[in-house]
Amino acid sequence: MSDQRLYHVDGDLVPADEATVSVDDRGFRYGDAAFETLRAYGGTILEWERHVERLEATCETLALEHGLAAADLRKRIDETLAANNLADAYVRLSITRGVQPGKLTPQPAVDPTVVVYANPLPRGGLEGESIWDDPATVRTVETRRIPDEAIPSSAKTHNYLNGILARTELRGTDADEALLCDLEGTVAEGATSNLFFVRDGTVHTPSTDGPVLPGITRETILELAADADVPVRDGQYDLEAVRAADEAFLTNRTWELRPIATLDGRDLGRGPITETLSQRYDEYVERMCYYSGH
Amino acid sequence: MSDQRLYHVDGDLVPADEATVSVDDRGFRYGDAAFETLRAYGGTILEWERHVERLEATCETLALEHGLAAADLRKRIDETLAANNLADAYVRLSITRGVQPGKLTPQPAVDPTVVVYANPLPRGGLEGESIWDDPATVRTVETRRIPDEAIPSSAKTHNYLNGILARTELRGTDADEALLCDLEGTVAEGATSNLFFVRDGTVHTPSTDGPVLPGITRETILELAADADVPVRDGQYDLEAVRAADEAFLTNRTWELRPIATLDGRDLGRGPITETLSQRYDEYVERMCYYSGH
Repeated sequence: MSDQRLYHVDGDLVPADEATVSVDDRGFRYGDAAFETLRAYGGTILEWERHVERLEATCETLALEHGLAAADLRKRIDETLAANNLADAYVRLSITRGVQPGKLTPQPAVDPTVVVYANPLPRGGLEGESIWDDPATVRTVETRRIPDEAIPSSAKTHNYLNGILARTELRGTDADEALLCDLEGTVAEGATSNLFFVRDGTVHTPSTDGPVLPGITRETILELAADADVPVRDGQYDLEAVRAADEAFLTNRTWELRPIATLDGRDLGRGPITETLSQRYDEYVERMCYYSGH
Repeated sequence: MSDQRLYHVDGDLVPADEATVSVDDRGFRYGDAAFETLRAYGGTILEWERHVERLEATCETLALEHGLAAADLRKRIDETLAANNLADAYVRLSITRGVQPGKLTPQPAVDPTVVVYANPLPRGGLEGESIWDDPATVRTVETRRIPDEAIPSSAKTHNYLNGILARTELRGTDADEALLCDLEGTVAEGATSNLFFVRDGTVHTPSTDGPVLPGITRETILELAADADVPVRDGQYDLEAVRAADEAFLTNRTWELRPIATLDGRDLGRGPITETLSQRYDEYVERMCYYSGH
C-alpha cells in the first residue's frame, strides 16, 4: 500500500498530488458538476441505488447527459476503495460537464470528467465509534437558502457558496453547523445536513416542498421511524417551533444521525426518540452492509 | 511564439494542456472562487482599477483573504498577454480559496490559487470589427435570479449554475441570451449581461438594488450617457416595460454594447440612442487604451 492516497480521475487511478482537472473544465469554471457523497461500510456502499437515482435527478436538472452507466461509476468507486485498501470510507463522486469552448451555454454533447475521492472513515454504529466527536452546536444564520426557482434544491452540485456563506457567518461563535431558513423565514436545513426535531413524541422535519435537499439519510430515517411506530411529520416550521423542541438532530451521509446539543445557545440535546432512531440506523447499516450475503 | 497558448497558474506560465488545478481545490469542489473578465485593448487593460475594486468586493463577500496585491495580479495578467503575444484579448482572472482540508467551512488562512487565461479578441470599436456577429436574440426564461439574501449578486464567483440553467432553457429556440427576472417578476439581467432599454428618449436599466451584477461596462455606459446629456434612470421594471421599448441593448466586458434584435420574438433593434452610446463607448476605449500616454 502506497503512502499516498489514490484518486480516480477520468478513468485512471492517480496519486493525490497528480489528481487534477483542467482549468477549462466547466466544473472549475462554473461549478457545473453533479456530485454524491457516499459511505462504504465494510467495503459495501450503503444505498447505492438511491445515490444513483439522486445523481441522475441532478444531472437531469443540469441537462448534463454524461452517458455513463451506473455500473461504470460503481466500478470506479470500487477500484478507488481497493487501490486505497479501504473498507470503511467516505466517498465523493463528481461528474462535471467537462471541457467545452469558453461559453456559458453548455453544449449538448458532453465529454464528462469523473472524479472519485475516498478517505478512511471509522465505521461507527454498533461495532465502532461515532465519526463526530460531539453533538452539533447549531446557530441560525442570516444567509437564506437559494429558492428552487433559481436553482432546484434537489440538485446536488458543485455550486456550494450558499452553504459556505452560511458557515462563514459562524466565525467567532462556538457553532459548527449553520441552520438556514428560506426567504420567508421557514426553517430549511443545515449547510450540509437535514434537520429533525422531536416535540411531544412526534418527529418533525422540514418538507422538501421547500428549499431542502432530499437527503438519503433523511429518507432512511423517515422510513426507520415509521418502522419503529414513531409518529413522523414533514412540514413548514418556523424557528420558534424548532427552538421549543424536546430533542433535535441532524442527518447526512457522513454524520449519520448527529444530536444537536444547542440551537442558538438553547440546550436541546438527545432524548429517547433520538436514541431509538440512532440505534435503528446502526442496525440498518449492519443489516445492509456488514451482513449482506453472509 | 509557441503553437500552444500559455496560462498563468499559481505563479507560473504553463501550456494550456498542463493548466490544471487540484481536484481538492475549493474552486473545483465548491466553485469557491472570485473572478473577473477583463479586456486588453492594444495591450492595455480597460478600467483595471474598477476590476480590482469589484474583485475585492467579491472576496470580501466570500471572506476570501487572498493576501495578493493588485500589482501582483496585474503582473500575472501582463505576463500572460506578453507570453501569448496578445495585445487585443479577452482575459479571465480567477482567485480560488485554494486547497484546504475536506470541510465546507473555509479556514481563514488561505493559500489561494490564481489562474489567468487570455484569448485573442478583435479590438472592435472605431478601428475594428465588432466581436459579436449579430445583435442579440433574447428570450425571457423561467429560472429566477438568485436573491441577494442567498448569494449577493454583487459577487462575481465561480457559482454559475443559475445562469447555466437559464441558458439551457434556450435550447430549441433561436435565442442566444436569456433574460432573467427576480422572484417577484421584476426584470434583472441577462445570464452574462446587463440590460438597457430606451423609451421616449430615456435610457433605463434595472437597478442594482435588485439581484443585478454591478457590471463595469454598465457603469461606464451610465456615465457616458450622462456625459452625452442622454437622460438615464435605473429602477424596477416589469417585462411589459422592456417589451414596449423603442431600443434595447446588452452590455458586458466582451460584448461591449450589443443591440437586442428581438426580445421574446418582438423586434426591438437599435436606434439613435444605442448608436450614440455605442459610438461614445468606442471613443472612450480609444481614449483610455490606444492613445493613453502617446
